[in-house]
Amino acid sequence: MAVVTIIGAGMMGSALAFPARENGNEVRLVGTPLDREIIDVSRATGRHPKFKKDFPAGLKYYQVEEMADAIAGSDMIIGGVSSFGVDWFGDVVLPAIPDEIPVLSVTKGLWDTEDGKLLTYLDLWQEKLDALGKKLVLNAIGGPCTSYELVAHDQTEVAFCGKNMEVLRKLKSIMATDYYHVSLSTDVTGIESAVALKNGYALGVALTIGLNQKAFGNDELHFNSQAAIFGQAVKEMSRLLEYQGSGTLDNLCVGAGDLYVTVYGGRTRLVGILLGRGMNIDEAKAELNGVTLESLVVAVRVARAIKICVKKGILDLKDFPLLMHVDEILTDKKAVNIPWEAFTFEA
Amino acid sequence: MAVVTIIGAGMMGSALAFPARENGNEVRLVGTPLDREIIDVSRATGRHPKFKKDFPAGLKYYQVEEMADAIAGSDMIIGGVSSFGVDWFGDVVLPAIPDEIPVLSVTKGLWDTEDGKLLTYLDLWQEKLDALGKKLVLNAIGGPCTSYELVAHDQTEVAFCGKNMEVLRKLKSIMATDYYHVSLSTDVTGIESAVALKNGYALGVALTIGLNQKAFGNDELHFNSQAAIFGQAVKEMSRLLEYQGSGTLDNLCVGAGDLYVTVYGGRTRLVGILLGRGMNIDEAKAELNGVTLESLVVAVRVARAIKICVKKGILDLKDFPLLMHVDEILTDKKAVNIPWEAFTFEA
Repeated sequence: MAVVTIIGAGMMGSALAFPARENGNEVRLVGTPLDREIIDVSRATGRHPKFKKDFPAGLKYYQVEEMADAIAGSDMIIGGVSSFGVDWFGDVVLPAIPDEIPVLSVTKGLWDTEDGKLLTYLDLWQEKLDALGKKLVLNAIGGPCTSYELVAHDQTEVAFCGKNMEVLRKLKSIMATDYYHVSLSTDVTGIESAVALKNGYALGVALTIGLNQKAFGNDELHFNSQAAIFGQAVKEMSRLLEYQGSGTLDNLCVGAGDLYVTVYGGRTRLVGILLGRGMNIDEAKAELNGVTLESLVVAVRVARAIKICVKKGILDLKDFPLLMHVDEILTDKKAVNIPWEAFTFEA
Repeated sequence: MAVVTIIGAGMMGSALAFPARENGNEVRLVGTPLDREIIDVSRATGRHPKFKKDFPAGLKYYQVEEMADAIAGSDMIIGGVSSFGVDWFGDVVLPAIPDEIPVLSVTKGLWDTEDGKLLTYLDLWQEKLDALGKKLVLNAIGGPCTSYELVAHDQTEVAFCGKNMEVLRKLKSIMATDYYHVSLSTDVTGIESAVALKNGYALGVALTIGLNQKAFGNDELHFNSQAAIFGQAVKEMSRLLEYQGSGTLDNLCVGAGDLYVTVYGGRTRLVGILLGRGMNIDEAKAELNGVTLESLVVAVRVARAIKICVKKGILDLKDFPLLMHVDEILTDKKAVNIPWEAFTFEA
């Protein structure tokens, strides 16, 4: 038995309490400053307000001011913040964790630099830790896993990544169940890039659903066009993984699986459909009541990095026609006009 | 304007009449001996009995005994037979085509040999042509394209493959439209393998749908498990393409797109769901009224080739856990028991 402390009681952090607790570990769920009500409700009812199923019995709940108590004696810390919590996690949470407790983060994203590099959140946090002289071991989770399906015990395959394989094996031994299967990789940039890249591409697939609804009515689904975008997406993702120095089949397949699951997931899909039907990005956002599209921020960042690399002569714009169009839609508010012929090749 | 003769009036052959005719070509649709009624109905009504939309005006229809008239003066021949028509096409049709008319086949499949090789239908036909001293130029279509969606003008991306790029460019100039986009590749083995391999893997994804229906009821769809299989499928397909000497990103992405569309297509999906719910393959076939599962034959052939290559020390069984399980289900009539943990890796 180990002590697993999850910091961030959003859906994904909270969903990880299921395999963690069902493995017989002590599990402590700590809310961020934004999770106060979630912790109150979970404490009172034994259920996360967004889940259809009770938490496993015996979970312990902590408000943010009780975080130090939760961290004390932990065998691992799961970072469950959204990408909007990245700074708070790096500035407030990580410094409070003793160096010997490994950290496993679920936050997906990439950060672009002025010279066209794409950094993982682990890279950003590592800079902060280095400045503090802290020796925490940072790890991350990638791969196709939606929280509500993990809660439902749908079979799930993810990858834990980090620099130290022994630490990764320990984390797997604590977390893996008969429905939560864990690959291990020391290629942090590869796994984190693969799972961050998929968001813009999932939007691309969803565009075709909206385009079809506009052309044929809402009830008729077509998959030729979805499949065409999917194939092109895998191709562009592979090229970006190459750029990241991580163009392995393992990484690409984690990304392809994550793309597949994201095509069916919530908001990215919905935005793509609205855009495909003919709205511009402002209208689509308004339709969604200004919901912030965390996932699409990554697409814009990656596009920005690509454009810098094109200027530097490192990348070729013709290799990324799909992402460039997604970026035009998001950044320049252009109408959807998928460059189908640009996806063809001669080989 | 060119003259396009389509031999085989099944759904895919007939669907290609749409882009061909809408491009202003003369299009001649020739039935096989099994298509007599389709040709009669199409001639009388202007509509294929399985389509929801009329053929473009001006199509010309031919029964099989009129084939020679249809072939005469053609600029290209499209082979539209199913995999059950492969022998007939090679023995009867190809010898009747003058060497200067290029042939473009839609038939997807692979053929295994006793020494573990996987041949394309073009390989098999080429042997027959060589024996006859004929110099026909054989080409094929791969990529994600279901017939009814092509008929509906959903945006579609396919790849034409053949040995001669100039011929391929000519075929594209005749066939490509603003909704039918065509890549060109001289890697026939790569394109044909990619699109044949996907069938067994599409069955794998569908298994999880049935498993979920059994566990959670028919209305609840889950995508974590589908995505896990999808990622593993792309990985195994890539390894098989490597084995075929065709492990390029272009080939893999044609295959990934084709896998995506096949997951949603007709019978393969239905069989997978029935198996996932708990039937064995005989029960599933009976439920489908003994429908012959053309697509799944390929999975068994590929598995057979892999096992021979494993004995020869060329391939490692551990690299294909998903296809091996699909083969167990189809060949040994085993119950579904997906080896989830075998999909995890350390990298």
